[in-house]
Amino acid sequence: MEHKKASPPTYLSHCRRLNNHSGEEVLKAWVINGEGGVDGLKMVDRDIPKPGAGEILVRLKANSINYRDLSTIKNAAARGIAGERIPNSDGAGVVEEVGAGVTEFSAGDRVVGTFFQNWLSGPIHDDVMPSALGGPIDGLLCEYALLKEGGALPIPAHLSFEEAATLPCAGLTAWHCLIDGGKAGVGQTALLLGTGGVSIFAQQIAKASGIRTILTSSSDEKLARAKSLGANEVINYREHANWEEKVLELTDGHGVDLVVEVGGAGTLEKSVAAVRVGGRISLVGVLTGGLMDPTSIMRKSITLQGIYVGPRDMFARLNNALSNNNIHPVIDAVIDFQDAKEAYRIMEKAGHFGKVVITI
Amino acid sequence: MEHKKASPPTYLSHCRRLNNHSGEEVLKAWVINGEGGVDGLKMVDRDIPKPGAGEILVRLKANSINYRDLSTIKNAAARGIAGERIPNSDGAGVVEEVGAGVTEFSAGDRVVGTFFQNWLSGPIHDDVMPSALGGPIDGLLCEYALLKEGGALPIPAHLSFEEAATLPCAGLTAWHCLIDGGKAGVGQTALLLGTGGVSIFAQQIAKASGIRTILTSSSDEKLARAKSLGANEVINYREHANWEEKVLELTDGHGVDLVVEVGGAGTLEKSVAAVRVGGRISLVGVLTGGLMDPTSIMRKSITLQGIYVGPRDMFARLNNALSNNNIHPVIDAVIDFQDAKEAYRIMEKAGHFGKVVITI
Amino acid sequence: MEHKKASPPTYLSHCRRLNNHSGEEVLKAWVINGEGGVDGLKMVDRDIPKPGAGEILVRLKANSINYRDLSTIKNAAARGIAGERIPNSDGAGVVEEVGAGVTEFSAGDRVVGTFFQNWLSGPIHDDVMPSALGGPIDGLLCEYALLKEGGALPIPAHLSFEEAATLPCAGLTAWHCLIDGGKAGVGQTALLLGTGGVSIFAQQIAKASGIRTILTSSSDEKLARAKSLGANEVINYREHANWEEKVLELTDGHGVDLVVEVGGAGTLEKSVAAVRVGGRISLVGVLTGGLMDPTSIMRKSITLQGIYVGPRDMFARLNNALSNNNIHPVIDAVIDFQDAKEAYRIMEKAGHFGKVVITI
Amino acid sequence: MEHKKASPPTYLSHCRRLNNHSGEEVLKAWVINGEGGVDGLKMVDRDIPKPGAGEILVRLKANSINYRDLSTIKNAAARGIAGERIPNSDGAGVVEEVGAGVTEFSAGDRVVGTFFQNWLSGPIHDDVMPSALGGPIDGLLCEYALLKEGGALPIPAHLSFEEAATLPCAGLTAWHCLIDGGKAGVGQTALLLGTGGVSIFAQQIAKASGIRTILTSSSDEKLARAKSLGANEVINYREHANWEEKVLELTDGHGVDLVVEVGGAGTLEKSVAAVRVGGRISLVGVLTGGLMDPTSIMRKSITLQGIYVGPRDMFARLNNALSNNNIHPVIDAVIDFQDAKEAYRIMEKAGHFGKVVITI
Repeated sequence: MEHKKASPPTYLSHCRRLNNHSGEEVLKAWVINGEGGVDGLKMVDRDIPKPGAGEILVRLKANSINYRDLSTIKNAAARGIAGERIPNSDGAGVVEEVGAGVTEFSAGDRVVGTFFQNWLSGPIHDDVMPSALGGPIDGLLCEYALLKEGGALPIPAHLSFEEAATLPCAGLTAWHCLIDGGKAGVGQTALLLGTGGVSIFAQQIAKASGIRTILTSSSDEKLARAKSLGANEVINYREHANWEEKVLELTDGHGVDLVVEVGGAGTLEKSVAAVRVGGRISLVGVLTGGLMDPTSIMRKSITLQGIYVGPRDMFARLNNALSNNNIHPVIDAVIDFQDAKEAYRIMEKAGHFGKVVITI
Repeated sequence: MEHKKASPPTYLSHCRRLNNHSGEEVLKAWVINGEGGVDGLKMVDRDIPKPGAGEILVRLKANSINYRDLSTIKNAAARGIAGERIPNSDGAGVVEEVGAGVTEFSAGDRVVGTFFQNWLSGPIHDDVMPSALGGPIDGLLCEYALLKEGGALPIPAHLSFEEAATLPCAGLTAWHCLIDGGKAGVGQTALLLGTGGVSIFAQQIAKASGIRTILTSSSDEKLARAKSLGANEVINYREHANWEEKVLELTDGHGVDLVVEVGGAGTLEKSVAAVRVGGRISLVGVLTGGLMDPTSIMRKSITLQGIYVGPRDMFARLNNALSNNNIHPVIDAVIDFQDAKEAYRIMEKAGHFGKVVITI
Repeated sequence: MEHKKASPPTYLSHCRRLNNHSGEEVLKAWVINGEGGVDGLKMVDRDIPKPGAGEILVRLKANSINYRDLSTIKNAAARGIAGERIPNSDGAGVVEEVGAGVTEFSAGDRVVGTFFQNWLSGPIHDDVMPSALGGPIDGLLCEYALLKEGGALPIPAHLSFEEAATLPCAGLTAWHCLIDGGKAGVGQTALLLGTGGVSIFAQQIAKASGIRTILTSSSDEKLARAKSLGANEVINYREHANWEEKVLELTDGHGVDLVVEVGGAGTLEKSVAAVRVGGRISLVGVLTGGLMDPTSIMRKSITLQGIYVGPRDMFARLNNALSNNNIHPVIDAVIDFQDAKEAYRIMEKAGHFGKVVITI
Repeated sequence: MEHKKASPPTYLSHCRRLNNHSGEEVLKAWVINGEGGVDGLKMVDRDIPKPGAGEILVRLKANSINYRDLSTIKNAAARGIAGERIPNSDGAGVVEEVGAGVTEFSAGDRVVGTFFQNWLSGPIHDDVMPSALGGPIDGLLCEYALLKEGGALPIPAHLSFEEAATLPCAGLTAWHCLIDGGKAGVGQTALLLGTGGVSIFAQQIAKASGIRTILTSSSDEKLARAKSLGANEVINYREHANWEEKVLELTDGHGVDLVVEVGGAGTLEKSVAAVRVGGRISLVGVLTGGLMDPTSIMRKSITLQGIYVGPRDMFARLNNALSNNNIHPVIDAVIDFQDAKEAYRIMEKAGHFGKVVITI
C-alpha cells in the first residue's frame, strides 16, 4: 500500500535496553496465565509492535487497577480468557510513534487510554464490550502498547501520569454514574457507598459540582478523610447497621436523589430504601450473589441504571471538569512495575482509600 | 366563608330518583368492606357531596378496572384500608357542578378523572401517591364523585364514556412506559407482554408512533387479534418457553430497545435477556414474589425504570395522540353497575383482551 | 360552604396601625398610575384582602426590582395596563393567614412569591403569562398581598427577607438560563454579560456548579468584584470592542458552551460569534431594537432558547442549590418602602452590581 | 506498511471499460471548475483510487441533489473552493474494495455515504464540517469514490440505489429537524413549509410517527399530493398571505409544537408567529438575506435550533424507521449521469416535489 504516513515514525532508540538476545526490540509485560490468580501472574517479553493505520504506540508510564482487574485475574477462565493476557484497563504514557492517518496525536504527546477502544460517543452498543482493554483484549500492564487513535485522549496538563492512569475506569465510571447517567447537579443530594476508587472520584466530582453527598464507610478514619474531601454527611455503617434510615433522616425523610451503587450483596435493597420517590440508582457494583425484589423499584418509581464506564467524549468532558476545577485524583498507594502483584493484594484487602497505582 | 362562587351551582334535578328516606340527595356506591374480597363488595348509599373550592362534582357514566383495583379489593387490610372504601381509579362522566374558583370546567362537560389527584406535571414526588383514587382515598365506582379541578381532563371528542374510562390507569401507564418513560419512537422495537389493558394500549400507541412491536401471549387467537391491531411479530410463549431467544432472533441477535414489563414472576429475567445492550425496561408489573439478579442490569447497561401511571399533562398528551390518530381503546367486556362484581371476576380469570368496563 | 379550614386564621392584630378612617384594615401600596413613569408612582391605601380557598395572605417584608419592573412602569399603557396597578414581581414576607384547603403553609411561615402564579412544573404554556405578578396582575410593592398556595415557596433558612426577595425573577432566570435551559454543568464554560442581577446570580450558581465563566463589563472595578465571586476570566468590553474574539482566545478558538444573553442591541451577534459549534444561547435580554441574521444560528448549529423566568419546582431546585452551597445573593442597595422611587432610579442608571432591594 | 488486510481486495475487472489510453483504470467525474455555475460543470477523467486503511472504494450508482449542492456550484469561490471539485454530498452504490482494517463492509455490499465523513455520533463539533462531501472535500458525482468506513451505511433492503441516494442530506435533515432535534412525537403537530426534499421527507416521517402536520405550498396540485402522503392540513400560501394566522386557527389558537423552517427570507417571522408558547423551530433554510427580531423568541420562550444534517448513528436510526415502516422516498425526477446539469436546472426552477436524482 502506497498510503502516505501522517508523520514519520520516531526511532525507538530509548528502549534499546529492552533488546532481547536476538537483537529485536522487546517489551516487558505482565500476563495472566491460566488459573493462578495474582500469584500466577508472570512477566514475559514481547516484541514491540508497530502502529498500524489509525493506531498509536504508547510507552506506558503508569497503570491504575480496579476491582474488575483483580476479578479478571482471579476468574480468567470463567471470563473466556485462554492463554496469556495482559491485564489492566487503565494506563497513561507517552506516544512513541503514530500509524498512518493519525492526526490527533504526535510522538511525545502525553496520553491516557480509554477503557473501551471502540466507544467514541453516544449510547453503548454491541461492538463496545469486545474492545475493553485487559479483558477480551490485552490490557496495559506492560511497557508499550498499541491504542487506537480514538482509544486515547490527551492527559490534562495539571495531572501526572500516575494521576491520569486512575481515570479511564474509576474516574469515568464515577462521572457517568453521577453526571451523564445519574443526572445529578447542583443542589441535589447523592449517596456514595464506601471509599473505593469510584466513590472517592464521585465525591470529588460532586464537591466541584455543588452536589451534596452522604458517604458511608466502616472506618471513622476514612470518613474523616472523606469529609476533608468535601463529603457533607458521613455514616459509619458499622455503627448504623440500618444506615438507610440514617440517610432518610439526613434528607428530611425524602431520601436522596441518586445513589452511586458500588456495593456488594445486600446494599442494593438498602439503597432502594434510601433513594427518594422518583430517584435514581446508578449501578456499578460487582454484586456477589445477591438477589433483589424489584417491587420497590416499581412502587417508588425508581430508575435503576447499569453503568459500564463510558464513551470517549464523556471522558473528555470529565477531563475538562478536572482541569477547570483543578481536581487531582486521590492515590492511596504507588507500586513499582516489578512488584505489580502487590498492587492487587492491596486491592484484595479492600482497605484502600481512592486508587492504587503501578508506576512503570 | 363568604367566598364568591365562580359560577352558580347547577341544580341537581336529574338525580332526585336517588333520594333517600330523609329527602336528601344520595348516590349509590360500591364499597370495599373488610376482607371479603370481590364477594364482600357491597352497595351503599351516600350523600351526594357539594364541590368545594377548586373541586368539581362528576356524575359518573363509566368505570374501567385494572389489576390494581382487583388486588386492592382482595388485600384491603394489607394496603391500610380500614372501613368502607370505594374502589376503582378510572372513571368518566359529566360535570354536574363546579366549586368556587374552577375555571377549566363547566357543568355539562364530559370529563375523565386522573388516577392521581395531585400530580399535575413534572416528576413524581411524595405528595402524589396519597392522592390515588380507589386506594388511599375513595375511588369512582359510584354515581357521583368529587374530583379536583386539576384531577380531571376533558374527554377527547371521538371517545365514548366507556372508552374514556379505560384511559386513566392503563392508557396512561402504557404511554408512560412507551413514550415519556421508555423513550421509544419511530423505528425502534418494543417488546409487549400479553394482551392485558396496558399491553394492548401500548400496541395501539406503538402502531400510531411507528414503533415496531413483538407481542407475546399464550393464545394464538389473541395473537391474531394483536396482529390485527398492528403487532409486527407475535410469539406464543406456550409454544416457545424460551421466548426471549425468539425475541433475539427477531432482532438480529441484538434484542429490543424497550420492554414494557407487565409480567408476573419470572418474566423479568427473560425481559433482561431480550433487551439490547443499553436498552430500557419499563416496569409496571405487580410481581408475585419473584426476585431478580441485578448483575445483568449492570453488565448490559440496562435502564430499569419503575413506572407508576403518570401526571396530568402527560395524560393530556396521550389524549392528543388518541385524537390525532383516531385511536379507540379496545374494550373486552362492558358490565352493568349493579353487576360490578362480575367485572372483577373477568379480571381474575385473566382471559381478557384489552379493557373491562363497568357502565353506570 | 361548610368547607373545613386547614388551620384557624391568625388575627391581624399587628397591622392595626394601618387602619383607615372607617375602622377597616388597610394596606399601603405603590401603584403605577398612567403614563407618569417612575415619577408617576403613587402610594395608595387598599383594604387588606381575605385569603380565598387555596390562597395565602402574605405580609411583605422586602421586594427586589428588575429591569422588567422599570420597563413596565415606564410603558404601562403599551403593556395594556389601565388604571392603578401594583408593580414588582419579587417579594418575600410572612404568611399572615391561609385560606381554605391550604396545606403547605401556616401563619408565621417565611415565604417568597413565584413570578408566575400559574406555573407549577413542566413546560411553559398559555396560561402562565397572564399570571405574572406586577404586569397583567397586581405585584408585590405593598404591605400585604394574596398569593396562591402554588404561587409561593418557603424561604431557605439561611436567607433574609431581603435576600429571598431577589430570587423570583433574576435568581430563577439565571438558574433556568444556566442549568435547566442552558444544560451547562461541571467542566463547561459559560459567557456572562455584565454585572446585573441575572449575570451575578449566574456567576454564583456557576461557581457552585463547577462551570467556568467568562464575564464582561465596562468597569474594571466591577470585573474585580466579579473575580472575587469566582469569575474565571473577565473582559472589559470598553477595552476590547471585539470582545467575542477575546472569548474565542480564552477557549482555544472553540467558543463557549453557553451564553447567558442578557444584552441590549448588538450583543447577540457577538454572542453567536463567541459560542462554539453546537453551543447554546439562553436569551433573556430585553433587546432594544436590534435585528439579527439567523444564518449563523444555522451554520453553527446553535440552539437559541428564549427563557422567561421558570416554574415553581425549578425555583425549589434553585433554593436547594442555594441552601446546600450556602449562597447569599449579592445586594447592591437596600431602599426603604417610602423611598421606592429611588430604587427604580438606581436601576435606570444601570450602574448596579447584583440586586436592588426595597425593604418594607 | 506490512499491515495485514482484513480481507483481500476484489479485482476491479468490471470497470475495465473505463480504461484510459495509458491502460490505467480511470473514472468519470463531474467537477466544479471556477465560476461558471451549472454551465461551467465539466466531466473529467481521474484515476480510480485504492482504498487506504479504514476506507472503502464505492462504485456509485446514484446521486441525489440538494439546494446546498446547487448553491455550492454557483458560489464556489465564495465557499473557498479553488480548482476542480466534485460536487454533491449524496450518493449510493456498491462496495468495490475495502482497505485495511475495514470490518463493517465487504465488496459487493450496497452502501450509502454519510454527508459528513467525520460525524459518527453525539453532538456536532469542530472537526465535522471540514468533512462534508461535495464542499470542502470532493463529493460523489462520479463513478467511484473513497469513503471512510465510518462514512457509509448499509442501504435498507427495501430501497433502490436511487432511493437510498436521497437520504444523506435531505432525509437525515428532516429526521433531525423533526425527531432528534425537534423532539416531536406522536400526538404533536408540526408545520412543514413547501414541498422540497426536506419537507416531503418530514411529511413521510411525521406520518409514520403519528405527528400531525400542517403543510404549505403555493400550488394546489402539490398540496393535493402532500395530502395523499398524509398531510393532515394544507395551506396555499398564495391564497393565504397571512398563513401564520391560518396555522393558529388550525391549532385552536395555540400554534404548532414545531416548525421545520426551510424557508427563504421572510418565513421565519411567520414561523415564530405560528409556533406555540414554548415551542420549537428547527432551522435549516438557506435564508436569502433576511433579518429577524429576536424579541419574540424570548417572549414566547421559543427554542430556535440550527440543524446541519446529522451524525451517522442518527442516519442509522432513520434507516430503521424507513425499514420498519416501509417508507420509500419521493423522487420527482431521475436524470442520467451525462445529463447531470439538467438535474441542477430542475432544482433551480424550484418546482420539484420531493427529490431530484442522478443515475450513474
